Amino acid sequence: MKNVAVLTSGGDSPGMNAAIRAVVRTGLYYNLNIFGVKKGYEGLLSNDIKKMNASSVGDIIHKGGTFLKTSRSEEFMTENGRKKAVENLKTRNIEGLVVIGGDGSFRGAQTLSREGIATIGIPGTIDNDLAYTDFTIGFDTAVNTVLEAVTKIRDTSTSHEKTTIIEVMGRYCGDLALYAGICGGAESIIVPEDPLHIDEIAGRINKGKERGKLHHIIMLAEGAGDAKSLQKDLIDKTGESARISVLGFIQRGGDPTAGDRLLASRMGVKAVEELLKFNSSKVIGVRNNQLFSEDIDQALGKKKALDTSIYSMAEILSL
Amino acid sequence: MKNVAVLTSGGDSPGMNAAIRAVVRTGLYYNLNIFGVKKGYEGLLSNDIKKMNASSVGDIIHKGGTFLKTSRSEEFMTENGRKKAVENLKTRNIEGLVVIGGDGSFRGAQTLSREGIATIGIPGTIDNDLAYTDFTIGFDTAVNTVLEAVTKIRDTSTSHEKTTIIEVMGRYCGDLALYAGICGGAESIIVPEDPLHIDEIAGRINKGKERGKLHHIIMLAEGAGDAKSLQKDLIDKTGESARISVLGFIQRGGDPTAGDRLLASRMGVKAVEELLKFNSSKVIGVRNNQLFSEDIDQALGKKKALDTSIYSMAEILSL
Amino acid sequence: MKNVAVLTSGGDSPGMNAAIRAVVRTGLYYNLNIFGVKKGYEGLLSNDIKKMNASSVGDIIHKGGTFLKTSRSEEFMTENGRKKAVENLKTRNIEGLVVIGGDGSFRGAQTLSREGIATIGIPGTIDNDLAYTDFTIGFDTAVNTVLEAVTKIRDTSTSHEKTTIIEVMGRYCGDLALYAGICGGAESIIVPEDPLHIDEIAGRINKGKERGKLHHIIMLAEGAGDAKSLQKDLIDKTGESARISVLGFIQRGGDPTAGDRLLASRMGVKAVEELLKFNSSKVIGVRNNQLFSEDIDQALGKKKALDTSIYSMAEILSL
Amino acid sequence: MKNVAVLTSGGDSPGMNAAIRAVVRTGLYYNLNIFGVKKGYEGLLSNDIKKMNASSVGDIIHKGGTFLKTSRSEEFMTENGRKKAVENLKTRNIEGLVVIGGDGSFRGAQTLSREGIATIGIPGTIDNDLAYTDFTIGFDTAVNTVLEAVTKIRDTSTSHEKTTIIEVMGRYCGDLALYAGICGGAESIIVPEDPLHIDEIAGRINKGKERGKLHHIIMLAEGAGDAKSLQKDLIDKTGESARISVLGFIQRGGDPTAGDRLLASRMGVKAVEELLKFNSSKVIGVRNNQLFSEDIDQALGKKKALDTSIYSMAEILSL
Repeated sequence: MKNVAVLTSGGDSPGMNAAIRAVVRTGLYYNLNIFGVKKGYEGLLSNDIKKMNASSVGDIIHKGGTFLKTSRSEEFMTENGRKKAVENLKTRNIEGLVVIGGDGSFRGAQTLSREGIATIGIPGTIDNDLAYTDFTIGFDTAVNTVLEAVTKIRDTSTSHEKTTIIEVMGRYCGDLALYAGICGGAESIIVPEDPLHIDEIAGRINKGKERGKLHHIIMLAEGAGDAKSLQKDLIDKTGESARISVLGFIQRGGDPTAGDRLLASRMGVKAVEELLKFNSSKVIGVRNNQLFSEDIDQALGKKKALDTSIYSMAEILSL
Repeated sequence: MKNVAVLTSGGDSPGMNAAIRAVVRTGLYYNLNIFGVKKGYEGLLSNDIKKMNASSVGDIIHKGGTFLKTSRSEEFMTENGRKKAVENLKTRNIEGLVVIGGDGSFRGAQTLSREGIATIGIPGTIDNDLAYTDFTIGFDTAVNTVLEAVTKIRDTSTSHEKTTIIEVMGRYCGDLALYAGICGGAESIIVPEDPLHIDEIAGRINKGKERGKLHHIIMLAEGAGDAKSLQKDLIDKTGESARISVLGFIQRGGDPTAGDRLLASRMGVKAVEELLKFNSSKVIGVRNNQLFSEDIDQALGKKKALDTSIYSMAEILSL
Repeated sequence: MKNVAVLTSGGDSPGMNAAIRAVVRTGLYYNLNIFGVKKGYEGLLSNDIKKMNASSVGDIIHKGGTFLKTSRSEEFMTENGRKKAVENLKTRNIEGLVVIGGDGSFRGAQTLSREGIATIGIPGTIDNDLAYTDFTIGFDTAVNTVLEAVTKIRDTSTSHEKTTIIEVMGRYCGDLALYAGICGGAESIIVPEDPLHIDEIAGRINKGKERGKLHHIIMLAEGAGDAKSLQKDLIDKTGESARISVLGFIQRGGDPTAGDRLLASRMGVKAVEELLKFNSSKVIGVRNNQLFSEDIDQALGKKKALDTSIYSMAEILSL
Repeated sequence: MKNVAVLTSGGDSPGMNAAIRAVVRTGLYYNLNIFGVKKGYEGLLSNDIKKMNASSVGDIIHKGGTFLKTSRSEEFMTENGRKKAVENLKTRNIEGLVVIGGDGSFRGAQTLSREGIATIGIPGTIDNDLAYTDFTIGFDTAVNTVLEAVTKIRDTSTSHEKTTIIEVMGRYCGDLALYAGICGGAESIIVPEDPLHIDEIAGRINKGKERGKLHHIIMLAEGAGDAKSLQKDLIDKTGESARISVLGFIQRGGDPTAGDRLLASRMGVKAVEELLKFNSSKVIGVRNNQLFSEDIDQALGKKKALDTSIYSMAEILSL
């Protein structure tokens, strides 16, 4: 293994830059040539590939987004597309590729590894929707970003004594709502993994009001229901209109937290070490704070489940 | 003047606490008795009025929202309601009242002054929609809050090379969109005071793309059009779908900035000084960084216009 | 177990409020009476103990510091002092006590448990200097606070192309310097656990300059050396004067991060569950992201060592 | 006027990038050629001058520091140095120069204007120590940065019920201490313009303690006294040791606030417009929120005085 490339693909997440930096510097440390690919798989097709040195990744560890840019490439999904990608890599004698992204990106990596390119995946997505790993790069930042928003919303909802529905990202996985809900002191948390119990929520609001509670925060994952219909149902059952706040794309940005920078750095180092051991078609994960690597197939076959110990804690703490 | 009350009314804004603190401490400094009224005019009706001392306003200057709470009271709009309010004030020999809020709150103050209560208004609203004053308390914080969101959105929109529509508050007044747009480096700013020119915006996006611009930010005031129809029109004219981010209630919260804390402090001091001069039915404003007071009638009669020197600067800087 | 008290002791740390909240709400969930003790062990002596309900801990999960206050009590160190403390607890039939603090606070808890009070310790300190647990409450926030400072310092040190020495807390344990150094992209990290190699650091600075590096950050734990003498030595060896920035008490404050709120919540729940099992003289810890409890004696007997896998990573990444 | 250059000089301040951006884009708007000079006057000597286009200043409005870099050049102070600078400008037919910096930088601009280069100064320094203008670029950000630190320090000083001395920048001008003191709710503010009254401060602390105040913040400008001797004196007079926090270089960094970005943008536009009117040896200032230009000589001849209306307000509000 002499020549290794790195790319980011799919939705961006804070900490991707720290991961790229770790891949580049670890590669250089082990005397590899490291190449950066622009715009994900698209850059493999358009041959937008540049050799990197230690300075290429200077002053980026603290920046959100990905300086290599990212995209979702449709052409790469075709056989012709993948052929072109492999050719462009082989012309430069690039034997190894680190792919930072989510499950779609990992499937792309898997295909390339069948064509003789050693590929290692690093999980980068704010959704934390990959079953094989406890955490993905960007999740800790996203939770903290939601918490900052909750603190701001508390100011105004307390002043007005209002109920607020905060809708956060998470189409299939409720982790962002769950963690931000518990850490933000939400009274109710609604995740896609557990059906919405409108009577229970209305009951909590009504009970809280009796106790003199000044406001009530409902943390809703986007995949778990529609904020507007929830608002409508709550008017019927509590007599009051809740405010809605859809946090949107701010959840994807921001300077990465310490947690994400560290996880990204550790995973970047490990990814290169895997390539040096001639491993391929593997993804890096973290379980109980220990890094590991696993076959992509196996990893993608797992089904993400809600952490019930955390979920049941919400019940106790939102008293 | 021996007994003075203070309340916050209508929508809350960051810096209201600093204004209350200044009213309380200035009153005490001049040996007045100061009373805090809870939940705006509602507290006048329900007699939720408490005597305050220096410690009552300790550790609040830096906090968003209003610790006196606020509301929009319908009962106060009735003659009976106002009668009750005046009675509750007179029972306590409260002769002066400082009202922190927007134009609706000022109209309430005006009515009370006709009943013999000396009233002074302090402008507190993030919208900056009061024509008689350059700035209102909360506006500087709201602009900075929007800028923080823009910085986060930039991370992800640059990584994806996307156009983003950011919708901010401002039903009739585009100041928040204008200031946040200029300071956030938005390429296009759309305000209620100036009709939307879709072709011009699409032209800018297309020109930017030719120049290799990585992303394009459109700052849209909520009163100036609908983000979704703008998005639809832009697909027709640029061939690409812009992302939408509606910032919502986070714009109302957050620790007040230095600018808002200072303005609130200065206005709170001035309001009490006006009462000590036996003035009534006046509002405090700031023009060219100088405080002044003005009759409520006169102040509310003015029509807010866009600052054209700032607006035309946007044209130059968004090149 | 029917009556349980909670206190915070020693240096405060962000997340202590979240831990108190979890103790109170978990206690109430299991139908216990929960008492809050003010100012640490001092409040046990002065009998400053109040019964708490769910609202007592409302709106505090996101706030730094500890609303129960904290102190270092000298009187409690005496036998008479401890006797008085036990009396005050027994008068109220308080059988269990949760102590949130560092090693000194744990020793106090241990003494009380010998007097028949069941005690459980929760590790709260920004220093992360307790060997028996991977992390303490407040550490994640402190690392992130240092990172924010590093980002600000980068702006000015890059503009001036200067070397900066950033001194952070950590008298005996270099974890804060180590984690903030790695995550802040520091070129050199100096911890008490490893002697300072001035020639190595000067060498890195000189090498960096040749490579065109615009600035160089040295992260120094306060226990590892003196910033001023380091500055002096560097002038001799690099010909240039580094700037010094001593971060000080800001490292102790700030809204707790998601990580600290979650850890604090989990530990608070577990502490109460330990008391319900009639356990005493135990501390709660986290190892590989799993909570556990351990005898205080045993826990305090361990010697904290630097995480060598993290420390050696710094070498690779600061290339 | 066809060719104009811009540089930043002396200490950097947040908002300098926004000012550069405004100069460049306004120049291009008026069809000028705009050149960026690296590292202040040093770049004029070393001929480190590059032509800029609209993209050169893309994505920088929100970033602290100055991407053109800055320095204090000793060679430029010599006649030979200045000669070389003028030659390098004339070779490129650069007739106008915008200098962003403090009084030292303005003196440099003045010298160049005597050699036939039209120069316009823009005030950029966090100290706000220029008498001719109400505000300088970077001051609003620095005040807000200090306030963030005060909020963090409050958490821990309230928890411990401690007095804290916060030392901020300001060698000759106390504005940063004054504004941050008032907006941070400091109980005492010590500025170079007014001698330190130790008995008064000790009296306030003692009186506050009687009233049950949980903490006391002393905001000290670095030019107004030494934190350590103040600490020593306070022990004698209050019986307690205050904590010291020296904020240091973080005050120079950080993303610029809306206020600074707007001021910088306005001043950048105005500087170019002055050059287009063939003005030279002038500085841009703001008085009562109105921009103006003034002869450098005249501007530098003024003596900065404390704003007594603000200073006396501190007395009332810190009750």
